[in-house]
This record gives sequence, structure tokens and C-alpha cells, in this order.
Amino acid sequence: MIEHSAPLGFRSWTTNLGLAPADRNDFAMVVSTRPCTTSTVFTRSLFAGPCVEISRPVAAGRTARGIAVLAKNANVATGDEGLRNALEVRERAARLAGISPDELIIASTGVIGCQYPMETIRTRFDALTPRGSSFDVHATAQAIMTTDTREKISSRKIGKATILGIAKGVGMIEPDMATMLSFIYTDAEVPEQELDDIFRDVVQRTYNSVSIDTDTSTSDTAAIFANGAAGAVNLTEFHQALTEVCTDLVKMIARDGEGASKLIEVTVTGASTEPQARTVAKTIVNSPLVKTMVHGEDPNWGRVVMAIGKCQDERTIDPAKVQVRFGYHIVYPPNSAGVDLISVRKHLAGEEVLVNVDLGIGQEAWTVYGCDLTEGYIRINADYTT
Amino acid sequence: MIEHSAPLGFRSWTTNLGLAPADRNDFAMVVSTRPCTTSTVFTRSLFAGPCVEISRPVAAGRTARGIAVLAKNANVATGDEGLRNALEVRERAARLAGISPDELIIASTGVIGCQYPMETIRTRFDALTPRGSSFDVHATAQAIMTTDTREKISSRKIGKATILGIAKGVGMIEPDMATMLSFIYTDAEVPEQELDDIFRDVVQRTYNSVSIDTDTSTSDTAAIFANGAAGAVNLTEFHQALTEVCTDLVKMIARDGEGASKLIEVTVTGASTEPQARTVAKTIVNSPLVKTMVHGEDPNWGRVVMAIGKCQDERTIDPAKVQVRFGYHIVYPPNSAGVDLISVRKHLAGEEVLVNVDLGIGQEAWTVYGCDLTEGYIRINADYTT
Repeated sequence: MIEHSAPLGFRSWTTNLGLAPADRNDFAMVVSTRPCTTSTVFTRSLFAGPCVEISRPVAAGRTARGIAVLAKNANVATGDEGLRNALEVRERAARLAGISPDELIIASTGVIGCQYPMETIRTRFDALTPRGSSFDVHATAQAIMTTDTREKISSRKIGKATILGIAKGVGMIEPDMATMLSFIYTDAEVPEQELDDIFRDVVQRTYNSVSIDTDTSTSDTAAIFANGAAGAVNLTEFHQALTEVCTDLVKMIARDGEGASKLIEVTVTGASTEPQARTVAKTIVNSPLVKTMVHGEDPNWGRVVMAIGKCQDERTIDPAKVQVRFGYHIVYPPNSAGVDLISVRKHLAGEEVLVNVDLGIGQEAWTVYGCDLTEGYIRINADYTT
Repeated sequence: MIEHSAPLGFRSWTTNLGLAPADRNDFAMVVSTRPCTTSTVFTRSLFAGPCVEISRPVAAGRTARGIAVLAKNANVATGDEGLRNALEVRERAARLAGISPDELIIASTGVIGCQYPMETIRTRFDALTPRGSSFDVHATAQAIMTTDTREKISSRKIGKATILGIAKGVGMIEPDMATMLSFIYTDAEVPEQELDDIFRDVVQRTYNSVSIDTDTSTSDTAAIFANGAAGAVNLTEFHQALTEVCTDLVKMIARDGEGASKLIEVTVTGASTEPQARTVAKTIVNSPLVKTMVHGEDPNWGRVVMAIGKCQDERTIDPAKVQVRFGYHIVYPPNSAGVDLISVRKHLAGEEVLVNVDLGIGQEAWTVYGCDLTEGYIRINADYTT
């Protein structure tokens, strides 16, 4: 297990609230011991749950000091009772941490349409200590998992400051604003507006560029908390380090996609606009036929060409200028020597498959992350029970 | 095997051109013995193959008398050589049938990126008789199959006239203009403009409303030929009968979707506009989590709610007004008696699963057709080889 040092000035609480089996935690809260700047983005789902709804004003006011997460029950489509329960949980969690409910983001992930077991939750909350513990990174990352098979943590140092990111999510993932749940804690000092600008740019390039199965969760939440305990940093370096942390997390999410055996990274270059590059890249990474091709380790590049062809609103794309590579190996158009199928098959046999498309009509580029589609995805989701 | 009587005034040719194994046919041509009115729609893929490209002017001129189909090789992304080969095949086929190349639509379906075996094709063409046979419906339907497991034929009578439809297609199917390949032959007399108007309306409600895997073929073609041999018909009845034939074919396509075990029919009612109903219905039928839920026969209606939530541009949708039913059984919102899970599970255990969503905000409706997502889909597409 890689050791990640926690940023200064955060405390954490983890416990079992009765949502998950008794042998694991299903609740994690991380709160800054000092005021911090913050930025949060949520799912755009029309069926966003009450945790998202009551957290939006907290995020908008940028008053958050921390986040509480309940795993294994999304508390979505649960009506007025679900809303009352979300408010009560937030109130109890905030009281425990000694902050106001208006300073706490709350997130919930898991099955849709079930009420929280409030009796158990109340009893378990009463047993928690107000002080919590010094920030236990691994315990926090493990407590927020649902069908994840691995914890997802990444960190970077910039000078004396630390950026630490935690994420969860393996299915129902094609975020439009943010992936399932991802939280970044840093003791760097970053002014509020700059933090928000940097975070939104990074979210667009990372969380909004990962897709497991084209489905969008009702609970997606990504938040960053910067409490300044380690002092000021160079903001360009901070932007770069944050991009690296979130890219790490996004690759972990894709690699741990439900049933996945391979990470697929699709880069589109030579596009006339950035949105065009993103559209083409996402269409490729989402194609079930491309995903099964990668799973089968079969160099059937016709499916990549087919997926590009689906981008019918991108009329500036000229099929005659398109080049497709698997790793470094050109597969389309085949050159006079033909395709080096041995090298291509070797690349496809790896755990990380790179699909590179050059559109040959401009200078813009975009990269997206996904995974192969396997029998495991079917089994997990056909058997996952209500 | 159901007997379908062929419409009057058509002849057919089927043979093996060396694209498929020797024990089955891979070429079918059906040509009207008299002039006919016609309408054809094609894929909008940017990577449409040469067969589509050379058939577009024929369709635009509405001069077509018939269609020739090659199965097992799409002749797509094959460059100038592929274009020359498509022209030669069309020329040979038209000469055989005694019509001009400008009167023949040509369609090709199968693997992308391989050249036709022209030597074999020439030899086999030379062996065909110019007269062909009286329209052999089953032989034609079988010759155009690729990974289809069943032939797809539907017919209706209106007065003395017959409408006969043939289709193929089980994967790479979310047509934007037309499904894989579908051809309708009728001896009804239908004026050119009316035929085109009726056909385009029917295409939108049927072929453009089926999705197996969200992928769009480079070769989709749907065409209708009306040669008038059985005289005039009531056009309202014709429109209705044509809708029925194409709906039959679309259900056969969905039911025979790669690896599919169940047909999923999603109807959205109470929408404020028809496009809104279509967007919501397609989002549901395309969701891998809904598809695996149906495969698992699990009444996890939260995934339907999630899929509706993904339609983020449809801001008039109000979650509080949404009702979801599986078959006749309300699953969301649960009423005071709760959900009748026994009846719901029984419905989900059938071969035809109906998902009905009422948005409760308007009068418009749309129905789409799809199938469940199974281990079989993965196996077929991970193992399908270049």
C-alpha cells in the first residue's frame, strides 16, 4: 500500500452506520480544522437526490469546511422522508464535528429508492467521538467505496503543501459535471476565485472526460478544500499538480470500471476545435463495439472508423485525412507496408490501450479515459439486486 | 416457417460470391420487372462506404428498379480500389438483370476494411442466369444475413396488393437514418411523392427508433419499391400497413440483437413534445444499466429514473410528476400499497419487457425498441475477428 501523507489541518471520522455489512465502514467525514476556500461541482441529473439538493446552497456560498459521505445507499427518489433524513444526518454530522450544517457538504451513493435505516444511524452517531482522528486517508477512501474493488487515492507535493485526492466510482459513470464522488484536500493556500477557476478547468479535463458505461449518476459530487495550513503556493504549479492528482484518480476509476480488464485512453489530435476533439474521443471510448474489440484484443480498427463516422454533426471531418493508431502503430490508413499486426496485437494485449486519432484538419486535442466491456460488467449489473 | 406471398412483378437472384463460406449465399438481388416508384434512406455516417456513395444519386433521382446486396463484407474504408470494385459489381449486377446501373441500389454489409475478392466474384457472376427466379422471399432474406440468427420478413395485404419487407441487422445498430439493411417491395401503386412522404414518416417511427448498442453502421440502407402491378390502394391503409410491416421488422431486429434474450419496448407518454418523448425513450433503452437490469430480471426501477435524469436538456421534466411502470405495474412512485413485486418480476421474466414512462406534463408520446445486454453480446463482439 502506497503511503500518502495527509495535508495539514484536517480531521476525519469513519464508522458503520448500518448501510453496509457490519465488517466495513459506510460513513466517512473529513473536516478542516480551520476556514478554507472551496469549490464543488455536482451531477446535472434531473433526478439529483436530496443530499445534492441540500448541498448546492452550501457549495454556492463557498462556506464548506468539509464533507460527509454515506456509501451503499444513494437516498435518491425517496421523497419527503428522504429529504428529512438527509437533513437530519447532516445536522448530526455537523454537530459532531463542531461546525454549522451550512459548512458541510453531504454526499450519498449506492442503491436508488431505499430509505436510510435512521434508528441504527442515530445510535451509531451517538457512539462517535466529537474529536475524530487525525486525517486517516486510507480509512476514508475505503469507507466511501460501493462496488469499487480498490481504494482510489492520489497525492502530490508542491513545496511544503500537499494535494490529496480521494475518489470512488465504478459504474453509472459518464459524469457531465463530475464523477461519482471525488474529494481533494489541500493545505495549500489558494484564493477562492482562483481555486474555483482552476478546479473547474481540471474537472472538465479529468472527471468530465471519463466514461465507464455512459450512464450518469444522480449523486455525482466533486469538491476541493484548501485550508492554507501550509501557506501560499505557485498557482501554476498548483494547477499542474491538481491536474495530475485528478488524472491519476480518473485513470483509477476507469481501470476499476465494473468488470473492466483494461484502461482505454483515447486521444484525438488535429481537430478544428476542442469540443470536436472531445466529441470524437467520447464517441470512440463509449462505443460498445470498440470496448468489446479492446476486450477481445482484436485489431478491428474498422470499429474506430465506424465510431468516428457517428459524429455526424462534425461536418468538417474529412475521412480522407483521418489517421488511426493503436499505441504507436498506424492501423488506418494502412501504408504501403501494411499494418504491423504483431506489434498491434502486443499493444492490445497490455493493460493500458491507447487509441490515437489524428483528424488532420486543425490543432486542437482532447484525451478521454474509459475501459473495456466484459462479461464481468454484465454479471455485476444483471445480478446487482434491489 | 411462415409463408409470405411475394408481391407481383419482382424477380430475384441469390448466389455465393465468395464472401461467405461456400454453404450459404452472400448475394441477393431483387428487381422489379416494371417501372416503379421508390424511396431510399441511407446512414448519415461520415465514413459511409462506396456502395452508399454510388447509390445516393440513384436514390435522389428516384430511378431505382431494384437493389443488390452483398453480405459479409461492408467494402468500407477500402479507398479507391473499393470504389472501383463497387462500381464493377453494380455494373455486372445491372447487366445481369437487364437494367441500367442507374436503376440499381447497391448495399454491402459485414467487416470493415477488406477488399472484395474480385476474381471469384467475376466467375460467380458469369454463372448466374439473366432471368433469375420468381421472387424467392426466404432465399433473399437468408442471403443478406451476417451475424443474424434468424431471417426477418414481414408482410401485409391491402386489397389485392401485398407489402413485403425484408431486413437484416443485429449489431452496430442505432440507425440515425435507417437500420442496417431493410427493403420493402410492394405491388401497390403509390405515387412517387406520397410514397416518399409515407416512407420517411414510417422510417422515423420504426428504423430510427430501434437501438441494439448505440453504434451506427457505415452501411445502413432502407428502400421501398412500389411497382403498381396490383393496382391502386387506399393510401391511409397503405401507410398503416407499412407501419405494421416495419414495426414487425424492427421488433425482429431488436429481439435478434447480438446476444439478446429479451425485446425491450420503451414507451414515453405525457411528454411536452414528440422529440422530448423520443429523447427520454432512447436514453432509457440505451442505458447499459437498464439493459442489464432487464437481463437480470431485477425490478431495479432506480435505473430507469437515473436514465430519465440523464436527459439534462429537457428542463420541463419534473421528477415529481414522473410515473414509471413495468408492464401494467406501477413501480415509481410507489403507492401506499407499495410495489407488487411478484407481478413485476413475472413481467420481467417474459421475453418482451415493456417500460412505460409517463412524464405527466403534456400529450406527446414515442415508442422505441431495444434489447437486453448479455454475456452473449460481449462474447460475439470480443471474438468477432478481423
